[in-house]
Amino acid sequence: MTDAPPPIAALMASAAYRRAVETLDREHDRTVADIITLTQIPSPPFHEQARARAYLDLLRAHGLADVEMDAIGNVMGIRRGTGNGPLIAVAAHLDTVFPAGTDVTVRREGTKLFAPGVGDDTRSLAVLLAYIRALDAAGIRTHSDLLFVGDVGEEGLGDLRGVRHLFTQGKYRDRIKAFFTVDSPDVETIAVGGIGSKRYHVTFRGPGGHSFGAFGIVNPMYAMAQTMLELSRTHVPATPKTTFCASVAGGGTSINSIPNEVWLDVDLRSQSVDELFRLEARFRAIVEQAVAAENHARATDTGMITAELKLVGDRPAGATAMDSDIVKLATAAIIAHGFSPRHEFSSTDANIPMSLGIPAIKIGSGGSGGRGHSLDEWIDVERTASVRGMAAGLTAILAIAGVAP
Amino acid sequence: MTDAPPPIAALMASAAYRRAVETLDREHDRTVADIITLTQIPSPPFHEQARARAYLDLLRAHGLADVEMDAIGNVMGIRRGTGNGPLIAVAAHLDTVFPAGTDVTVRREGTKLFAPGVGDDTRSLAVLLAYIRALDAAGIRTHSDLLFVGDVGEEGLGDLRGVRHLFTQGKYRDRIKAFFTVDSPDVETIAVGGIGSKRYHVTFRGPGGHSFGAFGIVNPMYAMAQTMLELSRTHVPATPKTTFCASVAGGGTSINSIPNEVWLDVDLRSQSVDELFRLEARFRAIVEQAVAAENHARATDTGMITAELKLVGDRPAGATAMDSDIVKLATAAIIAHGFSPRHEFSSTDANIPMSLGIPAIKIGSGGSGGRGHSLDEWIDVERTASVRGMAAGLTAILAIAGVAP
Repeated sequence: MTDAPPPIAALMASAAYRRAVETLDREHDRTVADIITLTQIPSPPFHEQARARAYLDLLRAHGLADVEMDAIGNVMGIRRGTGNGPLIAVAAHLDTVFPAGTDVTVRREGTKLFAPGVGDDTRSLAVLLAYIRALDAAGIRTHSDLLFVGDVGEEGLGDLRGVRHLFTQGKYRDRIKAFFTVDSPDVETIAVGGIGSKRYHVTFRGPGGHSFGAFGIVNPMYAMAQTMLELSRTHVPATPKTTFCASVAGGGTSINSIPNEVWLDVDLRSQSVDELFRLEARFRAIVEQAVAAENHARATDTGMITAELKLVGDRPAGATAMDSDIVKLATAAIIAHGFSPRHEFSSTDANIPMSLGIPAIKIGSGGSGGRGHSLDEWIDVERTASVRGMAAGLTAILAIAGVAP
Repeated sequence: MTDAPPPIAALMASAAYRRAVETLDREHDRTVADIITLTQIPSPPFHEQARARAYLDLLRAHGLADVEMDAIGNVMGIRRGTGNGPLIAVAAHLDTVFPAGTDVTVRREGTKLFAPGVGDDTRSLAVLLAYIRALDAAGIRTHSDLLFVGDVGEEGLGDLRGVRHLFTQGKYRDRIKAFFTVDSPDVETIAVGGIGSKRYHVTFRGPGGHSFGAFGIVNPMYAMAQTMLELSRTHVPATPKTTFCASVAGGGTSINSIPNEVWLDVDLRSQSVDELFRLEARFRAIVEQAVAAENHARATDTGMITAELKLVGDRPAGATAMDSDIVKLATAAIIAHGFSPRHEFSSTDANIPMSLGIPAIKIGSGGSGGRGHSLDEWIDVERTASVRGMAAGLTAILAIAGVAP
């Protein structure tokens, strides 16, 4: 701890900070109870309402100001600071990957809790509540206002719609100057970059006809083939890592018919906004060229080949600089609590503010866990490790928010 | 008509023949109603049972003898002749190319009927019934017995299994001495040769993996794409007509996965045994080269791309001599009705008897139509043209069957 930069060292040396951590520890059973309660409220993709309403009530009960559900279904409230700092958002996501009907009953074995979604990201929702209580009990006033958020749509086809709304439509969209997403238990992994993705479902259509009788007319299969093959020949940089994948394809009428419709799903990703933009533009050009090539290669008198591109996934890329305050201080805070953090790129709610140039990172909620996105998902809530991880995250947040003397 | 050879001229000059054609004309609305009824009974490949049962009932209602469904699903019955000629089969196929779930509702605009399968080959099924009624109404007795057949498996992967069964397993296999298949409206096209075809189902396999995490490994989709694209660039002669078609494709796990398996159906045809052999050899080389190219284009440390070729269709080529009675008399009959017939090679049920040396041709069911094997398939049932085409076909059949005085 002696190596911690002054803001971290001073914070951790303060009596108020010690009182806050004592509260996290003393109220740990309540935090575990909150984890269980919230986990057992199903929150499938696009159906987070029940859990959102429950969390809204909890935010209100924790004395936050301006508690509300926004138009997209995020719930949030403000813990006021002194007014001497910008607004800082601290979020955890309400949704799980599990469909409606999944058994979300929590099973406890010793210090382990087993249930779908228990670690990703329900534990974090409970930890945010623990932070509010700890700050209140310790009488800590931050310079910044803290906006606590339970957001929707982080997983899969949710496509980050909750945090996207927060930063593009929500009433705080121009005020949030730093963003923490607390996502899953692991404290040692700090996400400092968001991998962007664009996903397309492309439908190639043509007149179709008899394989022998109509031979010589355009075939959408060949436009799709050229699209896949040209995509496969696209140069992408290893750093920032940029990838493409022709993932799923289908279509056709019968073996003796020139098909009238075939389709292809493509996944494009990059650690870099610019590279993803380049790759997407190239992909769209490839489709256009492949369609034109087929329309010039064969007869079009019964109809032309067309392609319809449908964007079915859109996650922005972005990164927070390694020498930014949020990365430096969070890293120091986590080290100061005895952890060995790594920095990585991943796909989380932090993608959205990163893509907008707003300092943002993903931190962990503490404790340990595993088998995320599986029915065997589990977390370990053993108190010492759990509280130490929670304290590390709280330290990172307070270092950015600033603490009034 | 003055140029018609004696059997045609005599037949067409007879009162009985005129009565038969008058019946075709008078009952044309009933024939159109039969077309609509039968078209609206879905008959996907390998699932012709519902239409077969309906057609069986119609054959029985038309007074045929020995009406039955055989072991493979063909339905048939005999109209007895005088016993002074060999057995002659007159067939139309029950199956369509369209998969289960295709909307087969017939839409009528003026004299046009629009529906998948309406012309290929449902109209012909109804026309065979009209022939039986016309012969009965005219009191025509043929020398030969006529075996009327609604057969299965003409299209695609059906691989002519209905007529193959009829000639190799069925109880009439050694007795049928001439074969007419009535297939699609066009009366001016007489198929006197069977186009050979080779059909392949190719499965491309690879290790598969995460679209981002495993990026850089081989992807079977790209080997499939190169196969399709190189096939599309293959030069084939216009004469003897030789064709290829990448018809149906599928595969893949999810949009964020490199697939471990994709597959492709390909149809290769030629009027020439030699050209089909060349095209097949080229296709097999293309697959091999595409697999090798992908294995050299990306990493294979988690596994290589492989391709498995399965021959799923193998239709024999064959021909009926231009100076055979069936070709000469059918040609004369069609000319005598004011048409200008062409002789061609195609791939129809007639391939099977042709390959066995049994005189066989494909004739049309009358009227006009288009867009076969597409969802926009249509026929025109304008009465005058429709009846004239039907009469031409009936004349051809009667010329071969012989008419008792």
